[in-house]
Amino acid sequence: MIEILPLAGLPEIRPGDDLAALLAGAMAGLPGGARAKDILVVTQKIVSKAENLFVDLETVEPDDESRALAEKTRKDPRLVALILRESTAVVRAIPGVLITRHVSGCVMANGGIDQSNLGPGGDERVLLLPRDPDAAAARLRGALGDHAPALIISDSFGRPWRVGVTNVAIGAAGFPALVDRRGAPDRGGRPMAVTQIALADLAAAAAGLIMGEADEGVPAAIVRGLAWSGPARPAADLIRPVAEDLFR
Amino acid sequence: MIEILPLAGLPEIRPGDDLAALLAGAMAGLPGGARAKDILVVTQKIVSKAENLFVDLETVEPDDESRALAEKTRKDPRLVALILRESTAVVRAIPGVLITRHVSGCVMANGGIDQSNLGPGGDERVLLLPRDPDAAAARLRGALGDHAPALIISDSFGRPWRVGVTNVAIGAAGFPALVDRRGAPDRGGRPMAVTQIALADLAAAAAGLIMGEADEGVPAAIVRGLAWSGPARPAADLIRPVAEDLFR
Repeated sequence: MIEILPLAGLPEIRPGDDLAALLAGAMAGLPGGARAKDILVVTQKIVSKAENLFVDLETVEPDDESRALAEKTRKDPRLVALILRESTAVVRAIPGVLITRHVSGCVMANGGIDQSNLGPGGDERVLLLPRDPDAAAARLRGALGDHAPALIISDSFGRPWRVGVTNVAIGAAGFPALVDRRGAPDRGGRPMAVTQIALADLAAAAAGLIMGEADEGVPAAIVRGLAWSGPARPAADLIRPVAEDLFR
Repeated sequence: MIEILPLAGLPEIRPGDDLAALLAGAMAGLPGGARAKDILVVTQKIVSKAENLFVDLETVEPDDESRALAEKTRKDPRLVALILRESTAVVRAIPGVLITRHVSGCVMANGGIDQSNLGPGGDERVLLLPRDPDAAAARLRGALGDHAPALIISDSFGRPWRVGVTNVAIGAAGFPALVDRRGAPDRGGRPMAVTQIALADLAAAAAGLIMGEADEGVPAAIVRGLAWSGPARPAADLIRPVAEDLFR
């Protein structure tokens, strides 16, 4: 059996907060504390807030490229300038939609920049994604010690052919984000058709069942009971290399 | 708390089996039986096996279009002919990759046709997807009665920009597969940026954590403790309409 436990009692996270200490405090409220193989899933939003990745759009001066792309996508030119600053390539741009490849490698809408649930601080404030989410996950796991045998930083992504967002792992530490079964036979001895399992994305999605975006706003959860094994691999392993992108 | 419970004790499913009766029997093994709001997740594979959606490739006669596409994708022309028969459009075709839009609307590799873990019956046997997975989910839920307040038929899909497969819901019954929060304010009163949650895909992914493809081969699981509400909506709601596909 696998359990998804919401981590209750976290305060609104503010810039400079010791996120590891706050998470450790909340985890102390779990009966028996953390267990071996527990995966702590935290939203990108609280990591970015603690790291003070806020930007006030009033401080952004868009260039000509940003203005042109903003007109095409009908978005705020200052927001588009920030998206371009945080991205290495534009994947799709049409009215209302701007999909880019973030510097981390993740392909997503709006460079992962958040504009909702940011707490007090003015309507012009936006929140960036960590530029290296795996490094942020490793740091946070390191600071948490025994409280987090494994850790995921999750975000919610859209999908090109499916409606609605699902949670994915943009950062991971302490466990194999991708499980590779290439070469293994199926139960009948034929080669397996499905050979790589996006384990960290599955765990992020499971945690997403209780990490609501608006209603409760639970920003952290434990995935307990998953029997992962093998060497740790980062969430970067979940990013398809540009050369293998069929939809450029 | 949410629990993901594997449904143990199911036999290898064979054509003509009463899948609902077998699932009901396995669910009777759960302490206390099924609970209100339990979501029973079953793999597409056991549904297709019970519905005898096996095809022997020796019976398939590929036409010229299939032969040409088979050469381009380096796949068996008979398999390609079946994929085309089960699809409405080819989305991408390169060596080793054939992505189509299945008649159900789902965009996926190889028309969802399985070639592994099919049990005894010859190496030339493949297994098709149900052509209307929502109808199959509704039928199965109807036959299960109180044993399945809600039901998902899941499959594992690749993603264009991410490595590894995740489980998604291709059929759903008894609960809202898509939760629409458009128009709802965030906690700070600003409009929500993320407005549609692919709830059935999240639940399928959570169940996917224990429904291994090869190791255990657990083909059914319960997602317990999810506080869904609102009118039931099918998994078809999770399919982006062709007109909104940015990657045609």
